[in-house]
Amino acid sequence: MNIPPRHRFVSVSLAICAFWICSVAHGADSLPSWNDGPAKTAILEFVAAVTDRNSKDYVEPAERIAAFDNDGTLWVEYPMYTQALFAFDRVKALAPQHPEWKTTQPFKGVLESDMKAVGATGMKGLMQIIMATHSGMTAAEFDQEVSTWLATTQQPKFKRLYTELVYQPQLELLEYLRASGFKTFIVSGGGMAFMRPDSEKIYGIPPEQVVGSSVVAEFQVKDGKPALVRTPKIGFINDKAGKPVGIYEHIGRRPILAFGNSDSDMQMIEFTLGGDGRRLGLFVHHTDADREYAYDRKSHVGTLDKALDQAKANGWIIVDMKKDWKTVFPAESR
Amino acid sequence: MNIPPRHRFVSVSLAICAFWICSVAHGADSLPSWNDGPAKTAILEFVAAVTDRNSKDYVEPAERIAAFDNDGTLWVEYPMYTQALFAFDRVKALAPQHPEWKTTQPFKGVLESDMKAVGATGMKGLMQIIMATHSGMTAAEFDQEVSTWLATTQQPKFKRLYTELVYQPQLELLEYLRASGFKTFIVSGGGMAFMRPDSEKIYGIPPEQVVGSSVVAEFQVKDGKPALVRTPKIGFINDKAGKPVGIYEHIGRRPILAFGNSDSDMQMIEFTLGGDGRRLGLFVHHTDADREYAYDRKSHVGTLDKALDQAKANGWIIVDMKKDWKTVFPAESR
Repeated sequence: MNIPPRHRFVSVSLAICAFWICSVAHGADSLPSWNDGPAKTAILEFVAAVTDRNSKDYVEPAERIAAFDNDGTLWVEYPMYTQALFAFDRVKALAPQHPEWKTTQPFKGVLESDMKAVGATGMKGLMQIIMATHSGMTAAEFDQEVSTWLATTQQPKFKRLYTELVYQPQLELLEYLRASGFKTFIVSGGGMAFMRPDSEKIYGIPPEQVVGSSVVAEFQVKDGKPALVRTPKIGFINDKAGKPVGIYEHIGRRPILAFGNSDSDMQMIEFTLGGDGRRLGLFVHHTDADREYAYDRKSHVGTLDKALDQAKANGWIIVDMKKDWKTVFPAESR
Repeated sequence: MNIPPRHRFVSVSLAICAFWICSVAHGADSLPSWNDGPAKTAILEFVAAVTDRNSKDYVEPAERIAAFDNDGTLWVEYPMYTQALFAFDRVKALAPQHPEWKTTQPFKGVLESDMKAVGATGMKGLMQIIMATHSGMTAAEFDQEVSTWLATTQQPKFKRLYTELVYQPQLELLEYLRASGFKTFIVSGGGMAFMRPDSEKIYGIPPEQVVGSSVVAEFQVKDGKPALVRTPKIGFINDKAGKPVGIYEHIGRRPILAFGNSDSDMQMIEFTLGGDGRRLGLFVHHTDADREYAYDRKSHVGTLDKALDQAKANGWIIVDMKKDWKTVFPAESR
């Protein structure tokens, strides 16, 4: 085809323009696993508004910070947080070096798979388990432990790796946000060091964009090799009112979008919506006993109670897993 | 010109190839404010090696983490850290609300510009000043204080804003590293919240890539507005052996390049060089009394003593400001 240069420019411009209009109008296509409904509409309208230079709600790319809780928001947390299951497995692996665990709770309960006994030791017991299994090694050794466990351990109900039990609609949303100039962060109550080794692979989120709880690390030179050693001392609990604090420490800006699934995410979402300009706060509501799990107000993990009551008054979007998600896990959408 | 399609492809390929060869051979052009010499050569060879897919030293872009100290490495720190001067100015501004400061050290010394008296109170006194001036306000209010001060306060010797007293060779290096697929971080003993408001503007480094010392922040809802309030309690001191810890907390990966200027940066550089594969560690040596300052072993700020002794044995590159930098500040290179 022989098009004069000037017309070539026009036709290229038209093509770019058409592509742009297409992209905006059919932003819907970026979220194929989301059913049409108020949640999907709220997301699409929000992203369109903050990315349109002519909108009064326009936000500079640098300020497009999106914060996602992890357990129950990006991957399965029921019937028990993945990290707790990892800790239980490590108790079993380390037991030969700790004969006293056979007779001491909460370790005895873990070794005998007596979850009632473990549960009876409460948060204090869980912390004892975390400290005994998450410290006393270098950062690199711990990374390796986590990666190996995640690569080899199946979730009991679904008989699949935990890394496959991430929510397909959320993977699409993360990608859609990044394609719209957002920087995506994980802001979780879970351990930073537990999430980081695989966060890039699973979610496309690099370790430096993962905020979470931590133990105190120490710089040591061991056998002439400088290394970070994890100590059995809590550094920071990045949960509830700790989430905005973790965001301040690690991100230094207020997100404009935050997504959680439990009452523990309320402060993060309040903080996010408390800034100027247009903002969006969402909660996953686990309503799908068939495809995943159904739990909320009375659940021992991911309790969603106050947030459900206050959602309407605060303009929080409740995402109903059963209604709003066409598929739940990646395998279904293949 | 009428070139058959096949030849067109060849000529385009040749052009790309020529451009590529040019870029590699004349990577030097990316660092015009660096004089030819061992430091510049070490940087160029390092970047070429870790970015060349065919090199045994190739490093995936995700792992190309570069960590820079701030005071004395990226901007002027002599004769006193910029943040300390900011704190002194805030003591003066807040003095009317604190009549007791007129008679209490270290505040009395600050108000009377008696730096000897302030110095006599040591690190404890300095911490008192920092806590009195860096807490008791929201994060947003503090950001505003910092930005306003930096936009209006001149450095006494150079009669220019502190934000203009950044090192031109380092701005070029940061940009060159980013253009080579690196992610650039500040890892400073200074306060994170003091550096973040302007880090993007000054260095092209967004706040979430600034690691530093901190006070404990608390999430509070004030007058119905959710905000972070800075408390007068030290959170973390990101200095010396704290720097590798801060890197672990905030970045979660070991840098492959680290740049400092004092003994306080030794652990960061040891940690950086302690990983596998090719790595680079550098120190700025302030040797230029004419264009900036000359100080090292016996200086009260930015002491460079042990690092000078150990540099050769450890393969650390000492950058001699006088010899290695063609220009020091941006204005000279305009």
